[in-house]
Amino acid sequence: MSGSIPFSCHPENCMLASAAVLRRNLFLIKCLDGFSCRSHSQRMQGTQSAAVPAVEADAEKIIQMITPALDPIRYKGQAGKIAVIGGCREYTGAPYFAAISALKIGADLSHIFCTKDAATVIKSYSPELIVHPVLEESYSVRDDEKASVSAKVLSEVGKWMERFDCIVVGPGLGRDPFLMDCVKDIVKHARQASIPIVIDGDGLFLITNNLDLVSGNSLAVLTPNINEYKRLVEKALGCEVNEKDGSYQLQLLSTKIGGVTILRKGKSDFISDGEAVHCVSTFGSPRRCGGQGDILSGSVAVFSSWARHHLLIANGTIGKSLSNPMVLGCIAGSALLRRAAAFAFQDKKRAMLTTDIIEYLGKSLEEICPAD
Amino acid sequence: MSGSIPFSCHPENCMLASAAVLRRNLFLIKCLDGFSCRSHSQRMQGTQSAAVPAVEADAEKIIQMITPALDPIRYKGQAGKIAVIGGCREYTGAPYFAAISALKIGADLSHIFCTKDAATVIKSYSPELIVHPVLEESYSVRDDEKASVSAKVLSEVGKWMERFDCIVVGPGLGRDPFLMDCVKDIVKHARQASIPIVIDGDGLFLITNNLDLVSGNSLAVLTPNINEYKRLVEKALGCEVNEKDGSYQLQLLSTKIGGVTILRKGKSDFISDGEAVHCVSTFGSPRRCGGQGDILSGSVAVFSSWARHHLLIANGTIGKSLSNPMVLGCIAGSALLRRAAAFAFQDKKRAMLTTDIIEYLGKSLEEICPAD
Repeated sequence: MSGSIPFSCHPENCMLASAAVLRRNLFLIKCLDGFSCRSHSQRMQGTQSAAVPAVEADAEKIIQMITPALDPIRYKGQAGKIAVIGGCREYTGAPYFAAISALKIGADLSHIFCTKDAATVIKSYSPELIVHPVLEESYSVRDDEKASVSAKVLSEVGKWMERFDCIVVGPGLGRDPFLMDCVKDIVKHARQASIPIVIDGDGLFLITNNLDLVSGNSLAVLTPNINEYKRLVEKALGCEVNEKDGSYQLQLLSTKIGGVTILRKGKSDFISDGEAVHCVSTFGSPRRCGGQGDILSGSVAVFSSWARHHLLIANGTIGKSLSNPMVLGCIAGSALLRRAAAFAFQDKKRAMLTTDIIEYLGKSLEEICPAD
Repeated sequence: MSGSIPFSCHPENCMLASAAVLRRNLFLIKCLDGFSCRSHSQRMQGTQSAAVPAVEADAEKIIQMITPALDPIRYKGQAGKIAVIGGCREYTGAPYFAAISALKIGADLSHIFCTKDAATVIKSYSPELIVHPVLEESYSVRDDEKASVSAKVLSEVGKWMERFDCIVVGPGLGRDPFLMDCVKDIVKHARQASIPIVIDGDGLFLITNNLDLVSGNSLAVLTPNINEYKRLVEKALGCEVNEKDGSYQLQLLSTKIGGVTILRKGKSDFISDGEAVHCVSTFGSPRRCGGQGDILSGSVAVFSSWARHHLLIANGTIGKSLSNPMVLGCIAGSALLRRAAAFAFQDKKRAMLTTDIIEYLGKSLEEICPAD
């Protein structure tokens, strides 16, 4: 499973970077000399090359390590309680995909906090989910009620918050301004309560315009696709995406946002918390139907919760460069989705949809990490 | 299937128990000398040991005895009419799981009484259920209408009550104060009408704070999980849960609440009506996803109805210690859920969810008690 991806970095290509950013780049390059993401031969040569190869993660080993044993003495909730913040008048599938994926991987409880309009539909998709119709959009709130409704939304979500092992913000959230303001408060609340958070979809739109919401939060994961990543790079680094030095730029981006973990989705998935760049490039499926990112966000939420617990009891035995539970969660989630997508594609070919992938999450995990 | 579980009792360990409770303990220990839950050798020795071993129930034999033969001469309703009181703005899966499980085991009719919000969704899960949108939550009732709405709710549920062989109170009930007050009236009404009642989930929250609602009701079953049991013990016995003397404490708890049947859920399930302690410890599944308790409550409702009918026509031939239909229903429900969960886990492994277990209820019952 191991191998290095030939991404290298040239900060001078980052045409719009400020002088401060360039100074930071040079500092980073110097520091990176000893990092595990550099190849053995490069370290042996002691060169100051700007190349920062992403290392293919041993995802199967990571999944095997962090996935908890199924012990009959455990009780409901101990294998994970996940919440998804998302689902509005237009979008109901995305939060469902994220929440049901969490359960299919092995979480015990999966909640969704969405608007009233979305709730009835999401509930009807599956009786396994707990759906809270508490979010509101501008069209249903008068200007003079905004403050009180906003406070009520935060109170409704807040009273549940500390029960969750991780929250996923964004699947099917939409971009309604009032809703976005409420979600801002929820993200702040999660941070204050030290609840890990995975941000995807419209959550990334919110975060990109308010980087301070996650900056320096080591329990935050961003999972941008190609366009979301482009906006994030432009906003945080003030430059265009540099494919040639993609790995380095990702590392720099994470560092710039204070060590938040970023999972950059693509043909291969690249993951960095500013310390190293890990890569998951096992082949999944060539179908790009909507919803696969939602499976990923739910999966990352479960796996990072498990990794956090594993590291707590194992005292970080996975190794220094893999001591961040959010990074481990990203690697595991990415690898599992790819395996499940491969099975689903083999089965359904061009007709493969997101629900087909979800049906293969269990088989995929079983192959890597048998339940018995 | 038989064996004794080495739970023993030491009432002095119940640190916070009042003097009155301690006196009652000593009285109970004295009485217990001749009880069937003590081992043969202990009875032979005539010792006054505080040990109260829980006896593994012969659940298969019980299921075979109480499950009615399928006779073409019978008509709709004779195999059981069950109602679930539960389902609110947030929870719709739980009452569905309880009600559909009752049907899958063999009941003829399964009703749900829930809020308007929940009804549409629950109806959409299955056309097999009869769903009454009659409950109301505080947010939809003005203060000045509360008395009239409350009376209307009771009237709506009350006019159906006597048709049911058992009602299940609690799955997905939520904790809305107005709803809780209405359910209090329903529980009182069921008792007056001598309708057996199984109380789970949020119903246990209500009962724990109002023990008089069930105290002395021999037709009531409580099915607490680890946390619900903890609150019940604290409230009723004024002490902490004592794992070492778990069997004895369960018996004492049941006695304290006037002989109500308690099914304490866990790795093994322990059941007592104050007379003896029975245990079901056949292995089910190590998954602890939410909803399994709802299957159990629906199952106990059906089996206890069948047991009640069986005891009526068989004049209690199962034996003195097993003459309580609610205890028989608990043993049968617990054993069937465990068997179905084992099948579902074998099939789905970590991806197993509650709906998967429900799909195996029929096969599990067929293996124990063939329909032909």
